Amino acid sequence: MPSNPLRPIVPAADPVQERNGVPLNEPLQERNGVPLNRPLPTIRLHPGNDCIVQVLDQRKLPFDVMMNDLLTAADAASAIRDMQVRGAPLIGVTAAYGMYLAACAETGSDIVGYYHQAQQSLAVTRPTAVDLFAALKRSATAILAAPDRSARIAAALQTAQILAEESIAACRAIGEHGLPFIADLAKAKNGAPVNILTHCNAGYLACIEYGTATAPIYLAHENGIPVHVWVDETRPRNQGARLTAFELAQRGVPHTVIADNTGGHLMQHGLVDLLITGTDRTTRCGDVANKIGTYLKALAAFDNGIPFYVAAPSSSIDWNSCNGLRDIEIEQRDAHELRFMEGADGDAVKEVRIYPEHSPAANFAFDVTPARLVTAIITERGVCPASEEGLRRLFPK
Amino acid sequence: MPSNPLRPIVPAADPVQERNGVPLNEPLQERNGVPLNRPLPTIRLHPGNDCIVQVLDQRKLPFDVMMNDLLTAADAASAIRDMQVRGAPLIGVTAAYGMYLAACAETGSDIVGYYHQAQQSLAVTRPTAVDLFAALKRSATAILAAPDRSARIAAALQTAQILAEESIAACRAIGEHGLPFIADLAKAKNGAPVNILTHCNAGYLACIEYGTATAPIYLAHENGIPVHVWVDETRPRNQGARLTAFELAQRGVPHTVIADNTGGHLMQHGLVDLLITGTDRTTRCGDVANKIGTYLKALAAFDNGIPFYVAAPSSSIDWNSCNGLRDIEIEQRDAHELRFMEGADGDAVKEVRIYPEHSPAANFAFDVTPARLVTAIITERGVCPASEEGLRRLFPK
Repeated sequence: MPSNPLRPIVPAADPVQERNGVPLNEPLQERNGVPLNRPLPTIRLHPGNDCIVQVLDQRKLPFDVMMNDLLTAADAASAIRDMQVRGAPLIGVTAAYGMYLAACAETGSDIVGYYHQAQQSLAVTRPTAVDLFAALKRSATAILAAPDRSARIAAALQTAQILAEESIAACRAIGEHGLPFIADLAKAKNGAPVNILTHCNAGYLACIEYGTATAPIYLAHENGIPVHVWVDETRPRNQGARLTAFELAQRGVPHTVIADNTGGHLMQHGLVDLLITGTDRTTRCGDVANKIGTYLKALAAFDNGIPFYVAAPSSSIDWNSCNGLRDIEIEQRDAHELRFMEGADGDAVKEVRIYPEHSPAANFAFDVTPARLVTAIITERGVCPASEEGLRRLFPK
Repeated sequence: MPSNPLRPIVPAADPVQERNGVPLNEPLQERNGVPLNRPLPTIRLHPGNDCIVQVLDQRKLPFDVMMNDLLTAADAASAIRDMQVRGAPLIGVTAAYGMYLAACAETGSDIVGYYHQAQQSLAVTRPTAVDLFAALKRSATAILAAPDRSARIAAALQTAQILAEESIAACRAIGEHGLPFIADLAKAKNGAPVNILTHCNAGYLACIEYGTATAPIYLAHENGIPVHVWVDETRPRNQGARLTAFELAQRGVPHTVIADNTGGHLMQHGLVDLLITGTDRTTRCGDVANKIGTYLKALAAFDNGIPFYVAAPSSSIDWNSCNGLRDIEIEQRDAHELRFMEGADGDAVKEVRIYPEHSPAANFAFDVTPARLVTAIITERGVCPASEEGLRRLFPK
């Protein structure tokens, strides 16, 4: 790692090899019989009942590994709203499975009205990710084109499964298109670890497999390119500390968790080679809505001449908007997510209040990074500048 | 507040008037018989024993209000190292009281060696704040100039008390010099609340009274100028959520706690009129070392044309350094501060682990904001540009 000319700036713990004697390059193995050395299923059909969908409850990770049963479209809506599932791609797939659960329970004679209502109930769960609306529209179109009830059920299931397959393929392709950036840096650094900073979780847990921002990282790691990931803790909800660190540990990717405040300092001292994040919505002009705080990291990367790549499957592109700051609705969530903190207390999971009793808190979930701060967008079709021209070259109308 | 032209951007809870029926403009009253509607003593002589110093244990706030007894210089060193006290001005005063405790316990014939050792033990507690070293030097000089043991004790106590008085006077003067910035904004906003963002705690709890960054805010509030403070939670250690929110509530200053990730979004949407922070060390050229994350907020303020003022008593100016990024040692603290979180669990205070068990974490305590991002520095002698010329005009050699 580069160092301060006067004093070496190194993390408190060596980020790469071990901590407290635990070798960090060894993947996690198992917990309570659940194998952890490969991705967990984020969503699937119940192994014993085709009209039940199971989701990995991401609110419990990394402390508990638990699948929740979704029996109805309303259950799927709750799973999205309550963030049992989160991440734009997975939200889209879950919404499509919600439509499938609606199909399983289809009643009444007003078929259009029935599915319109199911679609609406799933659409209002979260306002920012555009995958949600696209998946619902696609599912409703497929369902309503089917001739009868059993065909509608089949169409709904097929749509959800195709969306999942498309997400896996898109993530894999993003990994392949992003890999050269890491490989080139590794070459330039003569094999020293490439330090990558990421914010929030845009890993497989936000998708089905590979993840978006993590896909190039996983491919690099699999190909023996040395990487080290600075994981922003990502307040509130701590998706970096809870989810990204967990899934990097699953595969044995070297990583260090940091407070969200830390990235700028690391960049100033040459300790970050590359910033990469996912996106909840990207406008056709390249503005990027992503977890709150992404804009601050983008500013620091820009100020220090560090490239910032956004991993954006085309499902997250909103072709109807250009100016993200003006057009994208930023979700505000309950202040409870800020004021209380969940963590492990021995074997139990416990919540403590971390703010003064009467102090109010405001919880904005996303922010918008203007395209001018984005070095390039990595899509499943390749890499392009964060601009309408760039995106349209990859995705003609 | 200005609003997004398409959709109003307002905090989840009205930040100014009330929450859950609790009127936030009413100052806190008391807890367990301790009056909370005025500043607590951050450091004082024990009411019943002149050779015991008491400090407010800031690690316990806002959940417990507790004074700790310091009996020896080693106790004072621990109080600084363990962050029972924190904030550059208070660290300096505490160190001087530590020298006083050393004087109370003076032994041996090698007077110079004895005090040199006491000074050293207090100096190594924390590396970044420059007040610490200046206070120790001043105390040691005064002590060693005294003719006999009782004169040395008196000189040590007097130095500590003078430092405390000087801090109060400097904070008060910073308040007066900073007030016009808030008053002018209030005028320009036709009496709508001036939205001020602050990071970490540079309030009275970091000092003796008024605080540095909070001094103009308190004066504005006392003068009936409407203010609303966005309080960065300030990970790790949450000094914003735990201390700044608490002391603003003590005086009934309207405020809203936010995640550290949020400030950029608020600035993009016109919801911040002014950024003001304290400083742990300011170089003579205007570079500002302050709590980690300050640099990110400074970048966002700069990007959005929002003024960033640094409240810097001259005790925090390091005349021996210019390039802060190169010269200022950035303290790294134990990863435990990141990996565990303390909060209220009913009436108890409990710590929970918030990171995966085996993921390492790196804990940098400060960062350096380059002078180019600082609109002006507010000192006890007035306001100046963040430059050697500016600072030297106020503080000629």
